[in-house]
Amino acid sequence: MSEHVDADAVLRRVRFDDRGLVPAVAQDVDTGAVLMLAWMDAEALRRTLTSRRATYWSRSRAAHWRKGETSGHIQTVQEVRLDCDGDTVLLGVHQHGPACHTGDSTCFDADLILPASGDD
Amino acid sequence: MSEHVDADAVLRRVRFDDRGLVPAVAQDVDTGAVLMLAWMDAEALRRTLTSRRATYWSRSRAAHWRKGETSGHIQTVQEVRLDCDGDTVLLGVHQHGPACHTGDSTCFDADLILPASGDD
Repeated sequence: MSEHVDADAVLRRVRFDDRGLVPAVAQDVDTGAVLMLAWMDAEALRRTLTSRRATYWSRSRAAHWRKGETSGHIQTVQEVRLDCDGDTVLLGVHQHGPACHTGDSTCFDADLILPASGDD
Repeated sequence: MSEHVDADAVLRRVRFDDRGLVPAVAQDVDTGAVLMLAWMDAEALRRTLTSRRATYWSRSRAAHWRKGETSGHIQTVQEVRLDCDGDTVLLGVHQHGPACHTGDSTCFDADLILPASGDD
């Protein structure tokens, strides 16, 4: 990988909320599965863009959190998109191992609150 | 469609933030595309669960917003999932027409801030 990413230019366009955060949705580029939603401050997004390793901001621990740092279940980042309002980030990732700390493949596997109706 | 949804029981399990909101990610059930992220308060989620029409809370207008009400680009909801922390909702939807107010299929189409490297 050799391309230059102008992280500063990107960061200027992101509309962080009043806590300085944006929601980041991680999607598996191979399966299309939505894996998780986490939060990024400017520094987490900068690190993600420059290292291609998904890095988030933990609101509960008030610390940066490089996904998989302890579990080994890292996310290598294939592409990053910003939405039309500039206030949500979408990561296309290769997920190594399960994405969820529970051991599930995604953080949405366990809790289906409205099942498919069969209609539309 | 005839199944009963106990919306009250679901709503008690959702961890709304200090503004009373949760982020909701809408994913196209046919293509797997992540369409948009919007916000729901308890009433928006209740309406979504009971009507199977995606309904959000507009933070800028401070009003409920039934997706497609004016544009016709409605989202019929196939399934709804809650994440492991109970603080993010994932909707599987049939998207009628473009999801984005810009006319793009998704709100993430226009702004690729980190392109695929070709590596990994």
